[in-house]
Amino acid sequence: MNKFVMPEVIFGNGAIHQAGECCSRLGAKKVLIVADEGVIQAGWLEIVIKSCVDAGLSYACYQDITINPKDFEAEKGASVYIEQECDAIIGVGGGSVIDIAKAVAILASNGGSISDYEGVDRITLPLPPLVMISTTAGSGSEVSQFSVIVDSKQQKKMTIVSKSLIPDIALIDPETLATKSEKLTASTGLDVLTHAIESFVSLAATPLTDVQAKNAMMLVAQYLRPSVASKYNKEAKEQMAMASLQAGLAFSNAILGAVHAMAHAIGGKYPMLHGDVNSVLLPHVMEFNFLASPNKFMEIAQLLGEDTRGLAPQEAGRKAIAHVKQLSLDIGAPQRLSDMGFEEAAIENVAEVALQDACMITNPRDINVQQVEELLRKGF
Amino acid sequence: MNKFVMPEVIFGNGAIHQAGECCSRLGAKKVLIVADEGVIQAGWLEIVIKSCVDAGLSYACYQDITINPKDFEAEKGASVYIEQECDAIIGVGGGSVIDIAKAVAILASNGGSISDYEGVDRITLPLPPLVMISTTAGSGSEVSQFSVIVDSKQQKKMTIVSKSLIPDIALIDPETLATKSEKLTASTGLDVLTHAIESFVSLAATPLTDVQAKNAMMLVAQYLRPSVASKYNKEAKEQMAMASLQAGLAFSNAILGAVHAMAHAIGGKYPMLHGDVNSVLLPHVMEFNFLASPNKFMEIAQLLGEDTRGLAPQEAGRKAIAHVKQLSLDIGAPQRLSDMGFEEAAIENVAEVALQDACMITNPRDINVQQVEELLRKGF
Repeated sequence: MNKFVMPEVIFGNGAIHQAGECCSRLGAKKVLIVADEGVIQAGWLEIVIKSCVDAGLSYACYQDITINPKDFEAEKGASVYIEQECDAIIGVGGGSVIDIAKAVAILASNGGSISDYEGVDRITLPLPPLVMISTTAGSGSEVSQFSVIVDSKQQKKMTIVSKSLIPDIALIDPETLATKSEKLTASTGLDVLTHAIESFVSLAATPLTDVQAKNAMMLVAQYLRPSVASKYNKEAKEQMAMASLQAGLAFSNAILGAVHAMAHAIGGKYPMLHGDVNSVLLPHVMEFNFLASPNKFMEIAQLLGEDTRGLAPQEAGRKAIAHVKQLSLDIGAPQRLSDMGFEEAAIENVAEVALQDACMITNPRDINVQQVEELLRKGF
Repeated sequence: MNKFVMPEVIFGNGAIHQAGECCSRLGAKKVLIVADEGVIQAGWLEIVIKSCVDAGLSYACYQDITINPKDFEAEKGASVYIEQECDAIIGVGGGSVIDIAKAVAILASNGGSISDYEGVDRITLPLPPLVMISTTAGSGSEVSQFSVIVDSKQQKKMTIVSKSLIPDIALIDPETLATKSEKLTASTGLDVLTHAIESFVSLAATPLTDVQAKNAMMLVAQYLRPSVASKYNKEAKEQMAMASLQAGLAFSNAILGAVHAMAHAIGGKYPMLHGDVNSVLLPHVMEFNFLASPNKFMEIAQLLGEDTRGLAPQEAGRKAIAHVKQLSLDIGAPQRLSDMGFEEAAIENVAEVALQDACMITNPRDINVQQVEELLRKGF
């Protein structure tokens, strides 16, 4: 059975100014606004606060969030929500902020500790209204049914999957991308590509997710380079925001694969950018997964703009993989996990943790712990 | 600003059996099941009742619905809902049934008469949970924010547009298409094509609606003929169900154009199949609208499978129009409004009513009453 679900989406330059109005439409009186230091410095929090005030809403703020966000950060946010008697949540930022905003919503309405909700469909009570504003064109969390939070004691990422986590409204404002650094633009853009490719070859892919994933791949191939090249290329920012949205819709409904399973396991231990880890592992996993659906890899090559006329699927698949490697080189993304601080001694443990990740279930090729280790060594 | 909103979708053979479970998940205790005579004879109502009983729900039924459904049919349904103390609504059928189910939901929760809600965003109070099951691969109403109801006194169709009308869950079950007659398969299939083309060239089209509209066109071009040819071609039924869904998502968010504006005006007066009226008018409106976006019409030709290499947009656009005419001929759809009972004397009045229809606003080319009359004469 093909299932597809998404939030109401408002996409366009200036969308961020509608945050308060959206919450008001959802019946909110006092909103908890979740953000982080980068978002505050970029000036986006101020705009969101103004939109809430203009809509006649009270508000409180919470911003103690790090990359690869932690369980205790969600708990602290939930205390603020409860103490301040909020009744709705806005998250404004990248994937870390939005995932914490979702986790705060879970704890504030369902109680307990965040690890109680790890896995699929563990949330029973309804969440408060959620309005999420993406400022990175990367995570897709603003439209997804996922929240990924680090278990700080066990140093692993917990994947929480539930339809309740789909925000009520997602605001996607390409203008917010102009404040991102070149490095972050590259990293989050490669995360988008990974979402699109992994959801396209996922065992849970459907025609409804495929149209989104395919469009996202075409857009990344055309617009990621120019988006990294210039903060001021508005067309590239808009198209990358659309790519991020579409890849997010694809993976929220088709789930992901081995790249994300490994990246979650690594992100639980090391403070690396999620998109960087993905981009190192992506070509290796594509090589490994090729066996599972040669025709889909041929289609990936075509979507990325490669000429596959007269090629066998194997040859076309190699072109797709080479294309992904070249793109990552062109935009200066890290090429090895060891360059980012990953230690060889961690490989065995990370492989075991990755094998248990929810994303591994939809990887198109069966995989065992030795194969995961080998993929990690290739990326090392 | 690009806005996009849709219900949770469950698509696949057997989806209809989940109706009761879906209502139960939405908190329902007693469901009003809205259907019509054709649905009952095909056995689908019985299946929906069983799924409700299996889910532990009570139910009541309402089935006094005609094609181009009327205001008094909605009022009668609302009385049943209230008398029977229902708290959720399932609509199972084609566009007429689903539009009445939505209108019943409006009246049961907001009171008044259905004409109070004509136009955009006139519904203020929340509707009961809505689960809609499409059995025609045509109307797209199961995913749309529209309900089109005949004002029986004024003999015109009222278009009601509101986000509240988007069902909570849309169930799309290609197996239900196997009971449709050849004539109905052709008519509803051409309605799908009209939705896809009108939303693609609509002034309100966005990249998010375009991906849906484009895919729908490709699927209609490939699968409508075989779907009309055989009740038992499962692949064709599945693909036409997907086309209907995607065209529905496109037009719900991008709205429609002159074809639908005229078809609504005609449908308010004559008991004709909506898809038949659309298919007669579509090529004439395409010719008229070509001026507004030649490149989009070239793309339509390509999506329908035409070779446009080396052609100017005008030539490619003519191929698109010829393709649509040929498809309608091939599947035996009516070619003239007069063959369906339309009277020449009605043209002036119908043109005036059509010009006021909500769908006219997004038609890509400006249009006046003389031009509408001329289009009607071409289709006459």
